Amino acid sequence: MEVVETVRDLQACATADRRAGRRSALVPTMGALHRGHLALVDEARRRADVVAVSIFVNPAQFDARADLAAYPRTLDADLAACRARGVDRVFVPSERELYPGGFQSWLEVTELSKPLCGASRPGHFRGVATVVAKLLIAAQPEVAVFGRKDFQQLAVVRRLVRDLGLPVEIVGLPTVRESDGLALSSRNVHLSGEARRQALCLVGALAAAEGSLSAGERRRDAVLAAAREAIAKAPLARLDYAELRDPETLAPAPAMLAGPTLLALAACLPRADGQGEVRLIDNRVLLVQHRREGRA
Amino acid sequence: MEVVETVRDLQACATADRRAGRRSALVPTMGALHRGHLALVDEARRRADVVAVSIFVNPAQFDARADLAAYPRTLDADLAACRARGVDRVFVPSERELYPGGFQSWLEVTELSKPLCGASRPGHFRGVATVVAKLLIAAQPEVAVFGRKDFQQLAVVRRLVRDLGLPVEIVGLPTVRESDGLALSSRNVHLSGEARRQALCLVGALAAAEGSLSAGERRRDAVLAAAREAIAKAPLARLDYAELRDPETLAPAPAMLAGPTLLALAACLPRADGQGEVRLIDNRVLLVQHRREGRA
Repeated sequence: MEVVETVRDLQACATADRRAGRRSALVPTMGALHRGHLALVDEARRRADVVAVSIFVNPAQFDARADLAAYPRTLDADLAACRARGVDRVFVPSERELYPGGFQSWLEVTELSKPLCGASRPGHFRGVATVVAKLLIAAQPEVAVFGRKDFQQLAVVRRLVRDLGLPVEIVGLPTVRESDGLALSSRNVHLSGEARRQALCLVGALAAAEGSLSAGERRRDAVLAAAREAIAKAPLARLDYAELRDPETLAPAPAMLAGPTLLALAACLPRADGQGEVRLIDNRVLLVQHRREGRA
Repeated sequence: MEVVETVRDLQACATADRRAGRRSALVPTMGALHRGHLALVDEARRRADVVAVSIFVNPAQFDARADLAAYPRTLDADLAACRARGVDRVFVPSERELYPGGFQSWLEVTELSKPLCGASRPGHFRGVATVVAKLLIAAQPEVAVFGRKDFQQLAVVRRLVRDLGLPVEIVGLPTVRESDGLALSSRNVHLSGEARRQALCLVGALAAAEGSLSAGERRRDAVLAAAREAIAKAPLARLDYAELRDPETLAPAPAMLAGPTLLALAACLPRADGQGEVRLIDNRVLLVQHRREGRA
């Protein structure tokens, strides 16, 4: 497994791959790899000859300094996990390498970055869009694989790839979960005991909304209320947002739901060490069936 | 000479070039080609095996609708000029091709875009940075050639290429001028008679500032005053800005000049057809020598 530290070296690898007719895939990560990331690696393996993983905790996408400082960093374990999973190339740039002195070129996906996490975390998606564009320009992969847990991030990435004309296919994979349903996240390590148990309120909210739809409910506000009630049952959870939106444009869902609708959730729970909160997100695209009239 | 209309086709050309070991150069233009553009083409020819010219009047970089509407469009003549000059490939995308429905990904080079033309033309450099990044991603050239008449644009492009890590060398060429000194510009066609004569005040201002420095002046405000006086001598010219700045960072020059200093000018003159004004720019990097003490 190659470990590459500079953009120039990574581009040289890409040139060599193309000359040799090898198709390459990139899995961009912030490290602290878990089974969710490894599922992305496996998908990349199925789609390409060369699998590259980037590991970079991107300061530009953290709106809160404390969150950046607390973000788990487990480089040795990450490298071992990549090696064990058959990754061919790991890109571990320094902050200076990706943000050289005088850096000032920012990519903004204006509309998709506004709602949901963009509203809670100013500048977050500008940081995401900029670093993802830089990673794609550096690695020049034919395909890049992302998880759907970060649904809005995936929407932003798809849009910027299309808008900039980057020659890469973006693949989104289903969220990988713990056996009890909690979405895997590098931030879960900060939860324990009662907060970890109450974190299940997010999955509960997804299920409650789905249940409400199955029972024939189509009013947006009623479906949302079902989701919010599930989160309210967890007294340690502080709701950040619960919203129903168009899965592609992220525009607010109509008052009467019809067609696929994104339910996106964010909530904060107390950290195990008492140092503030952990912010967790989850989502599901609800398949809203037309209700047959006369049988509702 | 190939005429290419889509990003996808242009990227396919780039892939074929690389497979064949051909080095390619791009000259991005908005058409209405003059000898200044053709000098860029000649330089591209010296540096690459394949020379591509893009012709696209980029709506995103026009802050004023009237200026966009009035911008000269001479596609047939441009294609003939490219063919005659030995250009291999011309990229003529539609607006829809570069800005597909729902387009919303903008690149902003924050600091370098603020002063000078950025202050006069809000959004201009966001449009420039975005389209240049898109053209470089589409054409994937080893080298791209720009004119130094648009000095700030060149600074913005160099910065975005470095910041995004785009694998391309940026070359800037000296401004090509009419025999009387007026910088070539596609907008010059809108000038005639007295306005055309008075447009020389820009070159006069560059010479006046240089003369002032040769005479030993080092005070920024005095050098600027010399430039402004030269423009004030042309009653038809309305000064937009005359500024002394660092040629790399575009930071304001110190009160006492020392080292290379950019003199950047913009002025408006009446159009020949009476339909508003033509905005012209010009610049020179003044080589400020240390004044030998005791001889001043």
